[in-house]
Amino acid sequence: MTPMKGTTLKATFLFGTSDVRVLDIPEPTIVKPTDAIIRTVVACVCGSDLWDYWNSAPKETGIAKGHEVIGVVEAVGASVKKFKTGDLVVVPFVASCGECDFCLRDQQTSCRKIEFFGHGGGGACQAEFVRIPNADGTFVKLPVAENDRHMASLLTLSDVLGTGFHAAKTANVQPGETVVVVGDGAVGLSAVIGAKKLGAEKIILMSRHESRSDLGREYGATHVIAERDEAAVEAVKELTNGDGADKVLEAVGTQQAIDGAIAMVRAFGTIGRVGAAQYSNVPMDFSTIMRNITMTGGVAPVRAYIETLMPDILNDKINPGKMFDLEVSLSDIASGYEAMATRKAIKTLVRP
Amino acid sequence: MTPMKGTTLKATFLFGTSDVRVLDIPEPTIVKPTDAIIRTVVACVCGSDLWDYWNSAPKETGIAKGHEVIGVVEAVGASVKKFKTGDLVVVPFVASCGECDFCLRDQQTSCRKIEFFGHGGGGACQAEFVRIPNADGTFVKLPVAENDRHMASLLTLSDVLGTGFHAAKTANVQPGETVVVVGDGAVGLSAVIGAKKLGAEKIILMSRHESRSDLGREYGATHVIAERDEAAVEAVKELTNGDGADKVLEAVGTQQAIDGAIAMVRAFGTIGRVGAAQYSNVPMDFSTIMRNITMTGGVAPVRAYIETLMPDILNDKINPGKMFDLEVSLSDIASGYEAMATRKAIKTLVRP
Repeated sequence: MTPMKGTTLKATFLFGTSDVRVLDIPEPTIVKPTDAIIRTVVACVCGSDLWDYWNSAPKETGIAKGHEVIGVVEAVGASVKKFKTGDLVVVPFVASCGECDFCLRDQQTSCRKIEFFGHGGGGACQAEFVRIPNADGTFVKLPVAENDRHMASLLTLSDVLGTGFHAAKTANVQPGETVVVVGDGAVGLSAVIGAKKLGAEKIILMSRHESRSDLGREYGATHVIAERDEAAVEAVKELTNGDGADKVLEAVGTQQAIDGAIAMVRAFGTIGRVGAAQYSNVPMDFSTIMRNITMTGGVAPVRAYIETLMPDILNDKINPGKMFDLEVSLSDIASGYEAMATRKAIKTLVRP
Repeated sequence: MTPMKGTTLKATFLFGTSDVRVLDIPEPTIVKPTDAIIRTVVACVCGSDLWDYWNSAPKETGIAKGHEVIGVVEAVGASVKKFKTGDLVVVPFVASCGECDFCLRDQQTSCRKIEFFGHGGGGACQAEFVRIPNADGTFVKLPVAENDRHMASLLTLSDVLGTGFHAAKTANVQPGETVVVVGDGAVGLSAVIGAKKLGAEKIILMSRHESRSDLGREYGATHVIAERDEAAVEAVKELTNGDGADKVLEAVGTQQAIDGAIAMVRAFGTIGRVGAAQYSNVPMDFSTIMRNITMTGGVAPVRAYIETLMPDILNDKINPGKMFDLEVSLSDIASGYEAMATRKAIKTLVRP
């Protein structure tokens, strides 16, 4: 399985709208002493990978794709102390140092030595091998073999599960509360898991796709609302004594979604937003001042949540891996993008 | 001092821009069994009273003014159980029932039986006598005589002190944190008191008025920034290692103030906003998503904070009454409005 050193490897690049190609590129090497090289065991396609897929100008040089991965450590830089060749690790989508004040507060997405990978031109995870910066602060070792049956679920620790959990966590979901989840993609479904883990009693999922709402119910949604806009707000009000929900978890990122979230939340309630904002303003005027609405959330420091969420996976308490309703080989990854972009698949797993 | 029953009393009305008049009106009577009538001991003019004063159309019928008051109970309705004639009470600016789910969560500004007074046409507090609804849920008894030297400070419990404290409380100010206060009016100065009470180490007050910044320093501000806009943001960054403040308390309500607050807050920081929003949108785009900024606050449930803050006043730990730098008689209240509107006075105390 391991190619010879000095050979090439396959990696995924986006060259423009709907133009995903798998190319042969040189094997990565250690650049900084804090780097590690991993061999990909499983990777996947993220909803955020679709933004450029849907709409981007043609490019001479492709953009390396993929920021979610489980891999086996192949090589480490001189200053990497916590990991060694052969370790199986899950990699959060932000490479953080683990030592700065932000990291020590579990705010790793604001790490002072932060490095991104997967969206830029450098090493990315939809590939056979990847260089990951800040290995010691970023990797989490998995206590299983690479053929473990939990592998798909464990892969969600690298982004989507932690991102959904972040919505619930930053919104401070409390036992017994009523929570609305806006968005039935993989992040929304993960937010359902997060709300349930934190003890929400009523979890209302906005969804009009049966396969997604079925999975949402399996994950803990007690109600599914297929309506949109004002009808959706009315439906939430009906389920909440006219008050709105204690917490709304926004996992879409559109103006329509954030407007709806504000309309659906109870006075003194909180909106946890993890949908990547496609809007520039949030309507927070005197009427929200009167109601004491809180808006929180953001890009999730998923590194902070891995130790919290991993036991639930290994103990079969949650099964986020079920969101992968399509599996493709790396050479077929373009079809995995296409299936997600047309909502035929919730999320695509990729094996080299 | 108490006029005969059946006589008239003096009360303040706004008839349009800069048109404040004191009129003789009939004495209030108990309307609902939950009402009480109080004789005003001290009242005051609120910053929020100035919005209409600065700009409103001429009116045939004036708007009754005043929502901050300490008074002596003169009469109670049949169902008022906790208060009796002769009690000295401070009255929060929202009349709440004290029994509904919102009140029991200390969210009295969303009380299910909420009644406002002072901004509407009904009884208002810049008057010799006032009818207050929901007396049992609203009043807090003062353990002093009406000529006590703390009377001005105790009056701030009815709105401004609790409103400033709400900014700090909802922003979850923690011991050792750096807090910026935007606004050097009475609410901003109260937010300084609130931040200090919650243990903030560095309190940066935005102010260019010496009398206000001096009082701010007395209340706990460790730094004063006179700059505005980008220069103010730069000054905050200089004081915070380039990061921005942990918490920003926004006590103005303009677009400029809320934009500045976002620019001044650290990643994963919180903005507590209590300035009455004169804007309709908050710029919360992808850049704030990246930084995990939280926006919270609103109209303060000051009833919730009275028991917390009153001991600090009676023990001379805080002296919010010093914000009253002008005292007028009720018949001269128009001059008190004018002094605040032109920023000659921070806040005007009114005695009947």
